[in-house]
Amino acid sequence: MSIREILQTHPRPTDIDLDVLVRCIDECIACAWTCTSCADADLAEPDVQEMIRCIRLCLDCSDICVSTGQALTRQTEADRSVLRAAVEACAIACRVCGDECERHASHHEHCRLCMEECRRCEDACNALLTAMQ
Amino acid sequence: MSIREILQTHPRPTDIDLDVLVRCIDECIACAWTCTSCADADLAEPDVQEMIRCIRLCLDCSDICVSTGQALTRQTEADRSVLRAAVEACAIACRVCGDECERHASHHEHCRLCMEECRRCEDACNALLTAMQ
Amino acid sequence: MSIREILQTHPRPTDIDLDVLVRCIDECIACAWTCTSCADADLAEPDVQEMIRCIRLCLDCSDICVSTGQALTRQTEADRSVLRAAVEACAIACRVCGDECERHASHHEHCRLCMEECRRCEDACNALLTAMQ
Amino acid sequence: MSIREILQTHPRPTDIDLDVLVRCIDECIACAWTCTSCADADLAEPDVQEMIRCIRLCLDCSDICVSTGQALTRQTEADRSVLRAAVEACAIACRVCGDECERHASHHEHCRLCMEECRRCEDACNALLTAMQ
Repeated sequence: MSIREILQTHPRPTDIDLDVLVRCIDECIACAWTCTSCADADLAEPDVQEMIRCIRLCLDCSDICVSTGQALTRQTEADRSVLRAAVEACAIACRVCGDECERHASHHEHCRLCMEECRRCEDACNALLTAMQ
Repeated sequence: MSIREILQTHPRPTDIDLDVLVRCIDECIACAWTCTSCADADLAEPDVQEMIRCIRLCLDCSDICVSTGQALTRQTEADRSVLRAAVEACAIACRVCGDECERHASHHEHCRLCMEECRRCEDACNALLTAMQ
Repeated sequence: MSIREILQTHPRPTDIDLDVLVRCIDECIACAWTCTSCADADLAEPDVQEMIRCIRLCLDCSDICVSTGQALTRQTEADRSVLRAAVEACAIACRVCGDECERHASHHEHCRLCMEECRRCEDACNALLTAMQ
Repeated sequence: MSIREILQTHPRPTDIDLDVLVRCIDECIACAWTCTSCADADLAEPDVQEMIRCIRLCLDCSDICVSTGQALTRQTEADRSVLRAAVEACAIACRVCGDECERHASHHEHCRLCMEECRRCEDACNALLTAMQ
């Protein structure tokens, strides 16, 4: 699934490059759910005591990806300063969460997958920030 | 993107059929974003006065799909009565929103796409309710 | 803070009893944040291994309280079947989460506070369900 | 209701000044719900065509206030760079939304209340940013 099909039917689309925008929204969605799943899998690990920081950062990253992804989906009367600040926060949340997941990637496959998704979402956010300049 | 890959790495998965569960989570995510996009496209239509009910129901449906999709993603110590009630609410929100979108499907393509997504999500919720009995 | 003041300015309020509605929205908000805080405090407890179910149920309850509280706040073109199903799911999430928090209430003050808030929110949901019949 | 009581029971609180933190969380919660209510009241106004930008900015502001308020509520293993970026985005969303609500404050009481709440939340975010330096 991608948000592209319905975004293309919008009567008054923003002037942000659609490819870059769609990629960022799709990654925000994927990252939000991947982080929710990683935090939950961490909770079920025998070494949960070592996973506390990972759980916490995944919860933050998921919440921020959801709100950023929702705001970016809206095309009507978009305010660039709001979107830019939201995407910047999202990129930072993804970077910090991805770094923490990387520390556990060799022994928890969900952390490896989550690290990779956080990196993809961070890249997509940075690409969108460049496109919105 | 699908939530399947990371769900399969969970150390203690629920005993809900994975295919049925993954389908429902994926549709909740797709429906949440489709409804956010439809509400936003409605806002930009010249006949926005006719779209008020559609906007409101899309906002409700999006919120409920997000929270249901997040709860279903968690596998650790799942409580079936909570999940069942959340999925029932989601199925109803999708049905009511899909019915309203159907009224506008012939003149707004975003409503047609949103109607179809609401139907798919409602079906996936009902399939999961059957699987969880 | 209460949602009452701004709800009273709505140009087309629903015909749901305002006192009962306001109480339910206020409790959904309070319960959402209390559950987020309890899940987070659980994570920092030395006996986190014993708190896994509490964390998970608090996360579900928080998500469901947020979406229910948002849907109830909307007055325009409300659909009672959607709201009723959402409030029913919320009442169940609060009951199950409150029961789990009760098990830890004697040794974790945040669980005692969260149990009390879950009970208040469950009561407010049930009162609203009665008022919406 | 305030988040203060349960935050004070946290076993490992952050070193952020509690008064400043509590005020910011409380305002994020109040602003999230006020913006949801204002967007919904706008939808029911006869001059909805004039309220499109207000609705959209209220929806963004509500989403960002929810995610920021949730992240700030978590005390365990807080990452300051993530929180700072989230609070910066929230302050900007509140400023832009408050400015738009101000344009309608003289003829829509919900916009006047929402403007005031956006200003309070923006102030609380800025105070927290200063305290976190």
